[in-house]
Parts: sequence; structure tokens; C-alpha cells
Amino acid sequence: MRALEELVGLLTRLPGIGRKSALRVAYHILKSDEAFAAALAERIRALKSQIVFCSVCGAYTEADPCPVCSSPSRDRSLVCAVEQPQDIVTIEASREYRGLYHVLGGLISPLDGVGPEQLRLQGLMARLRSGEVREVVVATNPTVEGDTTALYLKRLIEPSGVAVTRLATGIPVGGDLEYADRLTLARSFRGRTKL
Amino acid sequence: MRALEELVGLLTRLPGIGRKSALRVAYHILKSDEAFAAALAERIRALKSQIVFCSVCGAYTEADPCPVCSSPSRDRSLVCAVEQPQDIVTIEASREYRGLYHVLGGLISPLDGVGPEQLRLQGLMARLRSGEVREVVVATNPTVEGDTTALYLKRLIEPSGVAVTRLATGIPVGGDLEYADRLTLARSFRGRTKL
Repeated sequence: MRALEELVGLLTRLPGIGRKSALRVAYHILKSDEAFAAALAERIRALKSQIVFCSVCGAYTEADPCPVCSSPSRDRSLVCAVEQPQDIVTIEASREYRGLYHVLGGLISPLDGVGPEQLRLQGLMARLRSGEVREVVVATNPTVEGDTTALYLKRLIEPSGVAVTRLATGIPVGGDLEYADRLTLARSFRGRTKL
Repeated sequence: MRALEELVGLLTRLPGIGRKSALRVAYHILKSDEAFAAALAERIRALKSQIVFCSVCGAYTEADPCPVCSSPSRDRSLVCAVEQPQDIVTIEASREYRGLYHVLGGLISPLDGVGPEQLRLQGLMARLRSGEVREVVVATNPTVEGDTTALYLKRLIEPSGVAVTRLATGIPVGGDLEYADRLTLARSFRGRTKL
């Protein structure tokens, strides 16, 4: 059935969806009422037209500038640098951070041909020049690319007198020493804190 | 973001997709080009309009009657009774069966209030009255509902002189005795075959 195969072909291009899941989803849509399929199609179409990038920080937003950038209650002396827009959603969900954000739009990765010039660094530096910011919290993943990017940011930003910090790496809360990998364990030793 | 939340809400109603997967899918659509989102929306909409039920066997099909029912090379003396249309796709993929199909549209389940009158049995009995069919292979799952339905079909069909058989139940190929549950093991003993 061409109509089914075409949908399955597109669905398998989505993350975490293999052929079996795609078939289950397609059959579910076939079985469900017309209104559900129509609503799903409509929402997919609407998503890209209604959500834009914040012109200040690069976050996904329906209004530009985004609610964080335009909020009077956020701490404007803190900017958290993240790899991609969805990282902001993840961090906001923790309700721990009350500063602003800046989306880098990627990580430095020489192997993939991504250099600093491909990141949104000009916008970041311009924001720092306003003088309001006193700390940039780098929230890149603790991977080779995340580490490289963090180090690059430190060298780029520190001369301007703004502090550069990084999220702590270590054993996850509720985790178990036994299941921590060697590198995580090594990092959690180096980053040990005084009790 | 309302547009994102609305899509995520609909996506989580799909089988096998929780909130985290739905978010990943939504972000992927946001990141991908306009053409992909448009194609996906279009295919979802097209699916339900282009695929219909075969008026003979009840399979999903783009042409009625379906390719199996209208094929001159299928064995018309065999009819395989399945619970739902997608079971036909699963069986066809095994390339073992060369007969026709009949979708029951459910299984007898007194607990869920599903009785024989809700299944597509009139159509099945009409097909048997043509005299061409000599065997009905019941391919319902080996569950309480599948067993009940198979037994009901046996009692309904056998008086008309048509043989009723059922797919073998036992240890899966490549499986391990150690991991077979008690009921599967018991059934595989009862259904043991001569070597």
C-alpha cells in the first residue's frame, strides 16, 4: 500500500522511530477517527509556522523576544550558553536557574567540520559588551565536543572580565558508584566538593 | 509554547510514544526543513482517504477488492481468519501462506463486552457458502480471547463441512526452553510433533 509505505518512510526519519514503531503509528492513525489524523497533520504544519527563534538568545518561541529574554524577573547578570534550543526547555524544567540563555547552535567539532565561526558567538559577545552580564554558565554536554566548546568560550570571554563557569560533572543523583563509568568517576573526584 | 505542547499532546496518543519521545519528535520536526513537515502532514492526511477496507476480506487496501482477493494465483480453498487488518501484513511478510484472508475485526471478549455478533462473521459464513473453501485457518493470538474466538469459529463452521485449523503454539524458533513460560511449554508438549 503506497500511502502507508510513504508515511512509514517519513516516520522512520524521526528520532527513535524504527520501521516497526512507524508501522504501529501508521496503523493507529488508520484506526483512529478522521478528526485525530486531521488534527495531527494540522499541528505538524502549524509547528514550523508558529514557532520562531528568539532574536536575542536563539530559543524557540512564539513571541520574539522570548518570554525569558523579556521577563523582568530574570537575573540579567547571568547568561547560560547551551548547544541547542531544546536544552533551554530541559534547564527551565529543573526550576533551578533564573538567568538568561544563549543558544550556540552547535558545538565545536573539527571531525564534523564545525569550527567556532559556525556558532552564534557574535551575538553572545555583543550581549556581553552591554556590561550587564557578569557570568556565562556553559551548559554544554560533558563530551569531547562539549568540553572543547567550553574551553573555547572560556578563552574567548574571560579577557573581557566576564566569569565563565561550567555545569558540574559527576555521579547522577540516585546513581550508583558501581555503575558510574571510569571517566565520570574520574571527573567526580577532580570536582569533589568540601562537606 | 502552545504549538509545541499541542503537537506533543497528540503525539503521546500514538502507540509507543511517551512524552520524552514526543518532544524529541517535535523538536526534530522544528529543526528539519519546511518540506519534511509539509510532506509528513500531507501523508498523515492522505492515509485515511487513500486506504479503505476490502469489501471481501476486510484488509486495508488502496483498490477494492484487495490485491490478495483479486489475485488469480492465490489458493481459494484456504481462508485465514485474523483479528485485525494489520495481521494480514504480518502473515504476508512470512511468505508462507498462499490462501485468502478474512478479518474478524476483533476477538470475543466477554470482559470487554465483545460478543460474536460484533465480529465480521456473516461475511465469512457467506464466503464459505460458495463451496470453494475447504479449510479456515484461525490465526488469532494464543490468548484467552484468541482461544475463545478460535473455539467459537470451530463450532460455527465445522457443521458446514469446512475444516477449521489453528496456527501452532509453542517455543519460538531460536527461543530457549529456559525462557519459555509455563503455558507456552505446556502447549508445546500437547502439540508435540513426530520427528
